[in-house]
Amino acid sequence: MAKKYIIAIDLGGTNLKVALLDLNYRIIARQSFSTRNFSKKDKLIGAIVNSVDKIQKARRLDKQNILGVGLGLPGSADTERGIVYSLTNIPGWKDVRLGRILKQKLRLSVFMDNDANLMCLAEYRLGRARGLRYAVCLTLGTGVGAGIIADGRLYRGANNAAAEVGHLPINEDGPACNCGGKGCLETYIGNNRILAQAKKIFRRSISLEETSRLAAEGDKRALAFWSRTGEHLGVALAGVVNLLNPEAVIIGGGVANAGKALFDKVKKVIRERAMRVQARQVKVFKARLGDAAGLIGAAIMVREALKK
Amino acid sequence: MAKKYIIAIDLGGTNLKVALLDLNYRIIARQSFSTRNFSKKDKLIGAIVNSVDKIQKARRLDKQNILGVGLGLPGSADTERGIVYSLTNIPGWKDVRLGRILKQKLRLSVFMDNDANLMCLAEYRLGRARGLRYAVCLTLGTGVGAGIIADGRLYRGANNAAAEVGHLPINEDGPACNCGGKGCLETYIGNNRILAQAKKIFRRSISLEETSRLAAEGDKRALAFWSRTGEHLGVALAGVVNLLNPEAVIIGGGVANAGKALFDKVKKVIRERAMRVQARQVKVFKARLGDAAGLIGAAIMVREALKK
Repeated sequence: MAKKYIIAIDLGGTNLKVALLDLNYRIIARQSFSTRNFSKKDKLIGAIVNSVDKIQKARRLDKQNILGVGLGLPGSADTERGIVYSLTNIPGWKDVRLGRILKQKLRLSVFMDNDANLMCLAEYRLGRARGLRYAVCLTLGTGVGAGIIADGRLYRGANNAAAEVGHLPINEDGPACNCGGKGCLETYIGNNRILAQAKKIFRRSISLEETSRLAAEGDKRALAFWSRTGEHLGVALAGVVNLLNPEAVIIGGGVANAGKALFDKVKKVIRERAMRVQARQVKVFKARLGDAAGLIGAAIMVREALKK
Repeated sequence: MAKKYIIAIDLGGTNLKVALLDLNYRIIARQSFSTRNFSKKDKLIGAIVNSVDKIQKARRLDKQNILGVGLGLPGSADTERGIVYSLTNIPGWKDVRLGRILKQKLRLSVFMDNDANLMCLAEYRLGRARGLRYAVCLTLGTGVGAGIIADGRLYRGANNAAAEVGHLPINEDGPACNCGGKGCLETYIGNNRILAQAKKIFRRSISLEETSRLAAEGDKRALAFWSRTGEHLGVALAGVVNLLNPEAVIIGGGVANAGKALFDKVKKVIRERAMRVQARQVKVFKARLGDAAGLIGAAIMVREALKK
């Protein structure tokens, strides 16, 4: 029998990643593109198809070597019918039957889901949430993505649109959010917002990496900056912990690299503000799979969908 | 074969209700007591046992007529081991093995759960949430109780302590809550809080029933009062809707009798503040089973536990 692989695609607002994984979820080959190079929908789909073809040819694989294609999206989608409702930070996508389009062009089985769900699935099967029955996974970047594990499975909601932790309001009269809401967590801890805040505090443009390094060195301004970010995140998570009573909250994405300065504050706020039983139960971990979580989750999705 | 019945007990901070239900969940007999008459734990347990005995004797039922006893509690409990962790508004209950105690005294199978979970179960099987896969049920009273239906089952969380919608923070620097948190929904819409507010607005003691009646008659102060209450509730529910993507939110309990003045505002705020896909999906309903929901849910729990 032909050796089997899985194609995984992680479509982000910044980067498009395409990879080949084996059935142990090891990444065998990968390509990365700047999403902004493909401003038109058809161009982006063309780039995905080209990349998948190239990876197959480079390894001399044909269709029967490929179990299927898994795609992670920064937005909401009908995973069963393969319809993309909309993509955050990528304009021009509305109710696109991407599943059918890719299937026709690639002649492979195609599965898709929200990228935060796939990151959560990866952490659940192979990372920090392994073996848990109830967990919440966050990716902190431009936006706040999240997935929920409930009773050992991804919690989906009526439209597979659940787990929007970034859009929990933490102040009734807080700033307007892109989503139409007000005072959403994302308006306090989204990348753009905290970069602007860091610039104010340090009176110059400063990367989050640098603020993290400075915090680790004990710089007071950097510590105050991360403490404030952790306070907002902790308040929202206290609510999530009261509502979902998870065993763990797992935090990944670029912002999670802030490390101790952020995590200590988040843990403290949850301990102080969440209810006794729930607060005692919950652990806060850094995600284990890092940057590859989306690709690994996409591959796991394909494997599990085909096993059913 | 002997005709079968179920004993249901709804232990609330104000009233203790004990009832006999048939297998169609019709209430055949019921007794009600003021919970405050039994300030000691043993007295309260004694009252439950006496009441169950009396109801059985009045109907000339013996043990084999009773399928089991279902108990709803205003607090957190380990439902599987029958341990009550604590009861809100009823002091003196901490880690009590109530399941074992009642089983010994009554010589019947005993099952227990949080009262809001049982209300939710009743609305799910026989009320407004019937046939839905994802729903959130609230009971608005002294506190804000809630239950979550996820993928057709009660969402429990790691310690059966989930669904605390009343303890979602809606303002980071809001008022201190009994739970230890700050700015929890309950600090804005709990009965005591809104009664105090109504007293201020009307410059006299006024019942919620009267404010509801006045609102229905178009009284501006009453409408403003309920609109404000609905605003707070709507903000918290916008968060719940973004997080859980339910098909419906079902609202019961005394406060739900405010009717249109409250519900219209809640719906408006959810429509304005929740995310597009989730807001379009969710419906807001008044609970159907009213006061008896807790007893009916307790009976359903017994039946379903024994079917497993």
